[in-house]
Amino acid sequence: MKKIINDPEQFVEETIDGILAAWPGYLRRGEESERVLVRADAPVEGKVAVVTGGGSGHVPIFLGYVGKGLLDGVSVGNVFSSPSADDMLAATKSVNSGEGVLYVYGNYSGDCMNFDMAAEMAQFEDIRVVTSRVRDDVASAPHEKADGRRAVAGLFFAYKISGASAEEGGDLEEVHAATKLAIANTRSMGVALSPCIIPEVGEPTFTLGDQEMELGMGIHGEPGIERTGIRTADELAETMTRKALEDLPFSRGDSVAVLINGLGATPPEELYILYRKVSEILDAEGISIHRPFIGEYATSMEMAGASISLLKLDDDLTRLIDAPAHSPFLLQQLGT
Amino acid sequence: MKKIINDPEQFVEETIDGILAAWPGYLRRGEESERVLVRADAPVEGKVAVVTGGGSGHVPIFLGYVGKGLLDGVSVGNVFSSPSADDMLAATKSVNSGEGVLYVYGNYSGDCMNFDMAAEMAQFEDIRVVTSRVRDDVASAPHEKADGRRAVAGLFFAYKISGASAEEGGDLEEVHAATKLAIANTRSMGVALSPCIIPEVGEPTFTLGDQEMELGMGIHGEPGIERTGIRTADELAETMTRKALEDLPFSRGDSVAVLINGLGATPPEELYILYRKVSEILDAEGISIHRPFIGEYATSMEMAGASISLLKLDDDLTRLIDAPAHSPFLLQQLGT
Repeated sequence: MKKIINDPEQFVEETIDGILAAWPGYLRRGEESERVLVRADAPVEGKVAVVTGGGSGHVPIFLGYVGKGLLDGVSVGNVFSSPSADDMLAATKSVNSGEGVLYVYGNYSGDCMNFDMAAEMAQFEDIRVVTSRVRDDVASAPHEKADGRRAVAGLFFAYKISGASAEEGGDLEEVHAATKLAIANTRSMGVALSPCIIPEVGEPTFTLGDQEMELGMGIHGEPGIERTGIRTADELAETMTRKALEDLPFSRGDSVAVLINGLGATPPEELYILYRKVSEILDAEGISIHRPFIGEYATSMEMAGASISLLKLDDDLTRLIDAPAHSPFLLQQLGT
Repeated sequence: MKKIINDPEQFVEETIDGILAAWPGYLRRGEESERVLVRADAPVEGKVAVVTGGGSGHVPIFLGYVGKGLLDGVSVGNVFSSPSADDMLAATKSVNSGEGVLYVYGNYSGDCMNFDMAAEMAQFEDIRVVTSRVRDDVASAPHEKADGRRAVAGLFFAYKISGASAEEGGDLEEVHAATKLAIANTRSMGVALSPCIIPEVGEPTFTLGDQEMELGMGIHGEPGIERTGIRTADELAETMTRKALEDLPFSRGDSVAVLINGLGATPPEELYILYRKVSEILDAEGISIHRPFIGEYATSMEMAGASISLLKLDDDLTRLIDAPAHSPFLLQQLGT
């Protein structure tokens, strides 16, 4: 295992230490837990708070999305493992200003169980909590079982919309409604070219041959829908974009935000080669791209691969996707 | 070779096509060459223009640094190859507003030869050109032969400073002087964990064993100064930071900008684990970090590894490093 790390058991703690050392103006540790990070100015008076949580190994997911116009706090689990209910409760209490708290996170069983428990505990402390689960990965279950789908990079859209809605002064019901709509309107699909290694495990999460790619693989290496030979960028763009388009379905006249996400080891050049084709496909379908996001928005450490996410916009979602958002982990892709 | 590409011969063209499709508000093609990109609003009236050029395969180096507060234009070569003198001349003419043009680029022989030729051709067309070459890699030649050193991620500091100086209205002599000082005050060193593959070649640029790392390797796979076994992040931070510190030398009381750069496949988590130790070392040495930059600022496609760059600041450089800079390839790490 070749990684730039020290003791594998300290991977998460040392990552957090480095992040806090770098960005004291953006982030601070929450109260009651070493595994909670919150906005430096949390709790923000008069504002609904948005909280997430999830396993480590996906930066900028999850803690990279804490900031003004984004999330208020995050609970940080071990690599690819859910944070505890106690840590999620600690995050909740650290950001609560009395206007209520929205949980937005990926639809993974460990997270669902722990964060439901945290929400219950928060209610006992008179903190109102509502929950939105992201399930954007069309490859993870068929259309008729969409409620069971996993989250992938579409998490970014849910964070961006919920954070903007809270920042502009929405109440808990409004922020929740905007987030639900963003989740309902998001579809993603990915492809993996190589595995990653969990530091504490030391072995690749899966194997793929030198001439193999896996379509629809999840961000922890969950099985996809097809193991294929080498496909070109244009073929991959075609397959992934069509799968996403037909699932909602998106249709002529729609306006969308597009996210081309790199899983970790994939060069930016390749993401732009994908975008070139995705934009051609959408153009031919009469779907207009309101705004692209291209880069590493949700990673799996050194995994190679990419995903395509589409968010169908209405007027409200357009305003919210365009709103400013501040994080040292976010590329300057909002505004010219 | 597993890459998300189409025809390897079209790698550069399709990357540029994707970038132009994504960011018309920031970038446009220059005149007279398909291999030139310039600011959407170039030439900027009354402003010194700053131009760079270099081989592809390093995004956001080079074309990611074209933007307001950054560079005015860039000539784009094939992967790891210099652009032609004609392309550099085309970039020069596309951005020239009559206030003179500064060339800032890495100290590689092909670039030096072609861009010197372009500068001569520009003089014939009555465009004043001056040149600054970046040579920040302390591992590429000993201190007494510092003029022959290669450029690595320290290019970012030279771009940031020259772009800010031009944007604030400096004349050609002032922009040149600020850039020279930034280059004189920058030191970098890197480590490689794995090679990359040039699309048109199809083979790894070098081989490294499963238990090997190479200290001081260049961004095209140029030999470093030591091939070692696995070292911890703290050991790597110690070696690279000390080498950089003692070369200038930096000393107690200095204020610096720090860049922890990922070469491509290295996860952000590992860069923050490095930063954690680098900030401890600098703190112990009485050197204060004015501003960190952490992420992928200069890549080598899917190469795994990282580099550490330090820029010693005075009052002018502090103002210039803090100035706004706009690019969809740049992380939001300027201002809180």
